[in-house]
Amino acid sequence: MKVVALAGGVGGAKLVDGLSKLLQPAELTIVVNTGDDFSHLGLRISPDLDTVCYTLAGLANPITGWGRADESWNVLDGLDKLGGPQWFRIGDKDISTHLERTRRLAAGETLSQVTNEFCRAWGVLHKVFPMTDDAVATWVETVEWGWLPFQEYFVRHACEPKVKGFAFHGIDMARPAPGVLEALSGADFVIVCPSNPWVSIDPILHLDGVMDALRNSPIRVAVSPIIGGKTIKGPAAKMYEELGVVPSALAVANHYKGWLNGFILDELDKQYLPDINAIGIEAATRNTMMVSSQDRINLSKEVIDICLSMKRQERTA
Amino acid sequence: MKVVALAGGVGGAKLVDGLSKLLQPAELTIVVNTGDDFSHLGLRISPDLDTVCYTLAGLANPITGWGRADESWNVLDGLDKLGGPQWFRIGDKDISTHLERTRRLAAGETLSQVTNEFCRAWGVLHKVFPMTDDAVATWVETVEWGWLPFQEYFVRHACEPKVKGFAFHGIDMARPAPGVLEALSGADFVIVCPSNPWVSIDPILHLDGVMDALRNSPIRVAVSPIIGGKTIKGPAAKMYEELGVVPSALAVANHYKGWLNGFILDELDKQYLPDINAIGIEAATRNTMMVSSQDRINLSKEVIDICLSMKRQERTA
Repeated sequence: MKVVALAGGVGGAKLVDGLSKLLQPAELTIVVNTGDDFSHLGLRISPDLDTVCYTLAGLANPITGWGRADESWNVLDGLDKLGGPQWFRIGDKDISTHLERTRRLAAGETLSQVTNEFCRAWGVLHKVFPMTDDAVATWVETVEWGWLPFQEYFVRHACEPKVKGFAFHGIDMARPAPGVLEALSGADFVIVCPSNPWVSIDPILHLDGVMDALRNSPIRVAVSPIIGGKTIKGPAAKMYEELGVVPSALAVANHYKGWLNGFILDELDKQYLPDINAIGIEAATRNTMMVSSQDRINLSKEVIDICLSMKRQERTA
Repeated sequence: MKVVALAGGVGGAKLVDGLSKLLQPAELTIVVNTGDDFSHLGLRISPDLDTVCYTLAGLANPITGWGRADESWNVLDGLDKLGGPQWFRIGDKDISTHLERTRRLAAGETLSQVTNEFCRAWGVLHKVFPMTDDAVATWVETVEWGWLPFQEYFVRHACEPKVKGFAFHGIDMARPAPGVLEALSGADFVIVCPSNPWVSIDPILHLDGVMDALRNSPIRVAVSPIIGGKTIKGPAAKMYEELGVVPSALAVANHYKGWLNGFILDELDKQYLPDINAIGIEAATRNTMMVSSQDRINLSKEVIDICLSMKRQERTA
């Protein structure tokens, strides 16, 4: 079985963690959004990559879902005394990741190479690819502040400004990272994690060649990040609302309409089943809330089972 | 009284600390070598400035003389797990200084401004100036490895390679930092701290205009960093030896010959008094070892007394 998972931050990392417990390293490739990447204090920070890798390595902070477990804050405390910026919370262990990434990138390594080395050092066996080794920067257009770099919107302004639109600077020139298109083209199943469609999944899909490669894979299934009109974490639901779309599992299915063929929504949202089926996407309800580690595995198993069942159907058809 | 002290790292910081206990903030200006400054892991590091400022702020590690007291090493531990460089030992608190310096320099502040702000934040009241806001890089020519950037020689190779010469890249284009020439020109006394003449004091002296400004000041006194043919810390004695000069207080006095008019050497070295007086420098022996905090104050008092006595002599003459 060859599975490719497309993932953003916390929600994506949870499902990917479950998948990694069920699939062998050779069976699973994870492609992670890098549109949120930015430089802060001269450090090259890749928030989604780090969240995914820390989670897979068992190093993630179990409370926040991002950052490191058993973290200390001596650097940030020292910065505070000097009047340095405090809005982006990075702990000491986390800073070591950013320092070494910054050093290696400055020395000419690609983000793929750095990520691969870090995964090896942390004992992550499944393949984790950044979506691209090129610079792509997500900007968010807001009513109050105009265009904001993603982290300014997301962290500094705590997602409070009203969203009008998105731009992925550099996306036209960016190429998918080595292995991404090959993995997608050869995948039995592509799984879109319960990540933000606007700012986590769309950047991956907008990369040159990704959509074509993805259509080569026969089964393309997404898990809704919206449950009961809300997101567990992050601003996806708020974004839909501000853009004039009722936030719901249906809205997410519509977002991926045209190329998605399977969709998993929460049992809470079963009223959307007919509408989603009507747009040509085979929908199924499951318990999609991932609170415990076991929840991640359970949902992953359901997702894989649905993929396998769609494959059987396809063969029969 | 207007005093300017020229200082490098640990030895300079100790004397400057003593001087700061005896002189008011308006009476003392400290000009610090920045030829050792370098970039590591993308961080802009100013080792001598930090040693001087940490010492004055009471934040310095009392054992090593450099780095921070009560330091933690979580960032370096994390780097170690990723295979990152370990040769330059920077603790978490120290890293906060470098991160904030890097951020501010990238935002367009000068090193003088950054240093001034840091001193304010740390409660350092005496004026601390980097010798220049421009990039100057000390390189060391060695028998074994050819030319090495200073920190590679000093830390990575632990001063083991045999020295053949020195170069201060960028020195011709560098201007003294704002206030340096004014402070020197208006100084009653210029005190050259017991720092390495080759790599801590020479870079300052080589800056355009420094020597002229310094000659405006009537009393120019150095404290020998070499005691009994050895240095307390650092490679100055080893450097003299490798360059074919017997390492001694006399060698240091000769180094500054032509412009220095007072010299303080350790009582251990009293045999050099006639030779130093013979080259036109008024020499005096004192206990120059600074072990305790009180030693720093005692030596500073001796240095100031000698300066005052030279001033009285001058008036009489």
